[in-house]
Order: sequence, then structure tokens, then C-alpha cells
Amino acid sequence: MARVVVDVMLKPEILDPQGQAVQRALPRLGFDGITDVRQGKRFELELEGPVDEAALARIREAAESFLANTVIEDFTVRVEAEGEK
Amino acid sequence: MARVVVDVMLKPEILDPQGQAVQRALPRLGFDGITDVRQGKRFELELEGPVDEAALARIREAAESFLANTVIEDFTVRVEAEGEK
Repeated sequence: MARVVVDVMLKPEILDPQGQAVQRALPRLGFDGITDVRQGKRFELELEGPVDEAALARIREAAESFLANTVIEDFTVRVEAEGEK
Repeated sequence: MARVVVDVMLKPEILDPQGQAVQRALPRLGFDGITDVRQGKRFELELEGPVDEAALARIREAAESFLANTVIEDFTVRVEAEGEK
């Protein structure tokens, strides 16, 4: 069983109100020195079978077609190494 | 300028209806072989200054106190390597 992680983030040019809200809250809570915050989604997919190029291609297709809205979001697909947290 | 990533995921024992909805949709859309999906949040924080142990400790504190709800969520803090996407 292997884990593939799909990270979906708003494109840099798209306004991110959730991230901005976090960024503005940080100094009030005593955390300085953080100049920007972006908030996105993380999907952890458990695959049965080997994570070969074909499996990753299918996951990229799934990410593109319905995990991310590629008009406003970028996504990355990566295999999480064994034991990585 | 360095980027620190905070991943926030529901604890394994907590029901994840968003992830389940994605998992159930996948076979209908023609993607088989995915046995489990968990959906969480990803925060990208841009720091000014060095990312030393003190800075990471502050970010862990911020993550624990208000990025994650540690009753139901786990979080991880990591420095994103230069040039990593």
C-alpha cells in the first residue's frame, strides 16, 4: 500500500482570503516575521498496487479533472516516502 | 525568504466525510484502485529571516494554537527545500 499526496493551492495570482485572514491574525497572536500565508488543500490517497508511472498518470488526471479547479488552482502529485510523516 | 509548510490532517480515528466523498466519486469517474482518501489543509508560510530552530518552534506553537484543532487534527511542520515545488 502506497500513499500519494496531492497538494492543491490557489495560483499565486489568485487572491487567497483564507490565507490573508491567517496572516493578519498571526501578529495579533504574537507571531511576527511571517510575510505571507497561503492556504490550500492536501489529499492523501492510499493506492493498492504499485505506484508506477501509469498509476501516477491516472492520479494526475484525477487531480486535474476534479481534485483541483485548474482555472484558479495549481496542484502537485508526489509519492510519500515510506515512513515519512 | 524561506517557506515553511504546515500540513493539517484529521486524526486517523476521526471520520473524514470530505475524503470519503472523494473516494466514492473516484470509481464513478473511472479511477480505480484507490482504497482511501483523506482531505486536509496545507498552509504555506513565508518567513522573513532565517528558519532556525527558534522560528520553527514559534511556527509549531502557532500551528498548535490556531492552525490546527489538536483535539481532532494532527499537524506537521517542515521547511520546504529551495526550488521544491
